[in-house]
Amino acid sequence: MNAPIVEITRREEFSASHRLHNPDLSDAENERLYGPCNNLHGHGHNYEVEVSVRGPLEQRTGMVMNLSDLMRVLREHIVARVDHKHLNHDVPFLSGVIPTAENIAVAIWNELEPEIEKFEGCRLHRIRLFESRSNFVEYRGSKPMR
Amino acid sequence: MNAPIVEITRREEFSASHRLHNPDLSDAENERLYGPCNNLHGHGHNYEVEVSVRGPLEQRTGMVMNLSDLMRVLREHIVARVDHKHLNHDVPFLSGVIPTAENIAVAIWNELEPEIEKFEGCRLHRIRLFESRSNFVEYRGSKPMR
Amino acid sequence: MNAPIVEITRREEFSASHRLHNPDLSDAENERLYGPCNNLHGHGHNYEVEVSVRGPLEQRTGMVMNLSDLMRVLREHIVARVDHKHLNHDVPFLSGVIPTAENIAVAIWNELEPEIEKFEGCRLHRIRLFESRSNFVEYRGSKPMR
Amino acid sequence: MNAPIVEITRREEFSASHRLHNPDLSDAENERLYGPCNNLHGHGHNYEVEVSVRGPLEQRTGMVMNLSDLMRVLREHIVARVDHKHLNHDVPFLSGVIPTAENIAVAIWNELEPEIEKFEGCRLHRIRLFESRSNFVEYRGSKPMR
Amino acid sequence: MNAPIVEITRREEFSASHRLHNPDLSDAENERLYGPCNNLHGHGHNYEVEVSVRGPLEQRTGMVMNLSDLMRVLREHIVARVDHKHLNHDVPFLSGVIPTAENIAVAIWNELEPEIEKFEGCRLHRIRLFESRSNFVEYRGSKPMR
Amino acid sequence: MNAPIVEITRREEFSASHRLHNPDLSDAENERLYGPCNNLHGHGHNYEVEVSVRGPLEQRTGMVMNLSDLMRVLREHIVARVDHKHLNHDVPFLSGVIPTAENIAVAIWNELEPEIEKFEGCRLHRIRLFESRSNFVEYRGSKPMR
Repeated sequence: MNAPIVEITRREEFSASHRLHNPDLSDAENERLYGPCNNLHGHGHNYEVEVSVRGPLEQRTGMVMNLSDLMRVLREHIVARVDHKHLNHDVPFLSGVIPTAENIAVAIWNELEPEIEKFEGCRLHRIRLFESRSNFVEYRGSKPMR
Repeated sequence: MNAPIVEITRREEFSASHRLHNPDLSDAENERLYGPCNNLHGHGHNYEVEVSVRGPLEQRTGMVMNLSDLMRVLREHIVARVDHKHLNHDVPFLSGVIPTAENIAVAIWNELEPEIEKFEGCRLHRIRLFESRSNFVEYRGSKPMR
Repeated sequence: MNAPIVEITRREEFSASHRLHNPDLSDAENERLYGPCNNLHGHGHNYEVEVSVRGPLEQRTGMVMNLSDLMRVLREHIVARVDHKHLNHDVPFLSGVIPTAENIAVAIWNELEPEIEKFEGCRLHRIRLFESRSNFVEYRGSKPMR
Repeated sequence: MNAPIVEITRREEFSASHRLHNPDLSDAENERLYGPCNNLHGHGHNYEVEVSVRGPLEQRTGMVMNLSDLMRVLREHIVARVDHKHLNHDVPFLSGVIPTAENIAVAIWNELEPEIEKFEGCRLHRIRLFESRSNFVEYRGSKPMR
Repeated sequence: MNAPIVEITRREEFSASHRLHNPDLSDAENERLYGPCNNLHGHGHNYEVEVSVRGPLEQRTGMVMNLSDLMRVLREHIVARVDHKHLNHDVPFLSGVIPTAENIAVAIWNELEPEIEKFEGCRLHRIRLFESRSNFVEYRGSKPMR
Repeated sequence: MNAPIVEITRREEFSASHRLHNPDLSDAENERLYGPCNNLHGHGHNYEVEVSVRGPLEQRTGMVMNLSDLMRVLREHIVARVDHKHLNHDVPFLSGVIPTAENIAVAIWNELEPEIEKFEGCRLHRIRLFESRSNFVEYRGSKPMR
């Protein structure tokens, strides 16, 4: 019998500030596009990031991937670099990126995918990023649109 | 390189009352089918509705669709018409519909799909409706069952 | 040594509808006073009610009052009478009361106080009632204002 | 016109203890693999289990499956057997299983699938099990990996 | 009979950034005192603010104070001035204040107290400010310590 | 002017198992008293503990007590000793105590009070312990009952 395929998810929080601003656009265009998120001094969020890994359930361990490894990867490669930071100024892996939730989620995917693939049989399945209770985004890697 | 495909979600709450009752059935059948939800004077919920839109991440803006547009569409086309209402009596787009969570979710999809498609590249992806912490439904449009 | 004084709280949820309307006022006054909550057909909520009991910690049991007793009292005397009901029409202990959160909390206190006092050493301490995540009220019985 | 395909979900909570330990491994290997979850006397969680059922929306009832039936199935077949239990010792359907979240989710799927298929047109769609706010797993049955 | 004394609470959210830094201290002292919260470019939170008002329950209305008035006061006098702002740079009522949660809560109290006292019989009772799920502060005005 | 008196709260989670059983009572009495919580092999919870400290707001720092100190005290003196443990077997400060929520809260108070009093001007104000979303207890130290 084949091993069941299961998805495991770890959630972490981080507190960061950001400003939505595209330097290639005029101030008026930025204001129109981003509204209050374009505020010169920025604003902030308690972000929640969920990382989901998909893979076969290993019979010996009862696990897809050790959740303590997943927690460690997420904390070392993401949370430690964004928590209590300004996403426009302090985070190398977001350098040159407008820190919308969409862009942050894709950047987190790109940071984590090679780390997850070091674990045999595991694939990064989904990044879900909550900016607030009311807004969140999901990214599942570069797959063709249905 | 192709743009990443991302899903963005906006969540809103509304407070409404409803009664589950099919006038084509006898009172006894309604009572058996809907139990306390058939109570003559109705009951109510703080509903939470999540609307998810899927599309390519536009490089210029860092967005799939402006979340402030998605919030506005959801508030104007749904929340303003159901909040502080009785779903059996006060909501034209639910007229003649038994207001189960399933039916409300499908009706919300049908209201929002043409609005979302006005935004270039965007597709309505999922309606998720919570009646309570314990009950929710999801609808992804008319796709064949797997 | 005296027994420590501890407060224990049980939380339950119920779904109900209500309409805010004072029959002694004109329709215009009701509309001005209650706004959308005056909607003729009512609206509804998933209410959360918390009942707190205060008393000495009994050494033999390690309890102030058995939480299963507190749960039973709350369910029998309150939840069973308001869940899936219309608070204006279906609930004898709210008869003639405008079902604002404040009035409901006071009425719940009045129903529960004699039940709690049957348990030796216990006093009803606080009723907290959430109409939604954003609105709640608290009542601690008839004590003079500071 | 075909009936819309909708997913409905019921969530329940249960409190249980467990210990992660594989008797085929040495104590040192167990300690290394499971860390504090290998603690001899076990530890515990307030688990949340979500069961999702997918099927066509029946026009007569406005339902995929009666949520009160889904609640009853989940309570009788799962919650009553795991709530206030030790998952390593007290639960026949987990006998011989290392009670990781992944294994519990698969075991719950196997218990519920035949019960759900008794309801015409309904298919078990997903088991989601939260061990805590930070850790959860999802299982969708034995489907080939993408 | 005297009117029951009830407390009503309104909760709102706002997203803001801040930096903890006392210009009268050296950089090393600031770093030691505030740790990562001293980060030069700041960081941010989704704050939740709860405002509680205490007063007699008016029989005619069933209210202590109209919750729609309390919501309006909170939104106009606080949320509109701090949401999507940098608390060190953009908020006159926090000018010269180190924006710790404690200081923000006291400043909100000072802004709201005169507004609440315009409502007959009402007294501001408590400001509760959540910086995150894990940290919050409460202020009840200038009362002597017990 | 006197410094404002403010309460600050830190919340942490821990996962533990327990069994409610008084060895001085018969098995039948234990069963009657504690019901399913008397299960021989125990059960478990994700506990949430909130520790509140009350004191004057120090102008130089904008703090009552450094939240990072409060977090450290709570983690070192409580969470590290109860997380992933069996409260009946593994926790010296609960030795001989029936691990009801009430008793655990009082024991946590007794452990933390001397630690908090090391911080000038600070007093331990309240321990709040959640066993689940539905049950919690509060303890404020040995004060006379109202």
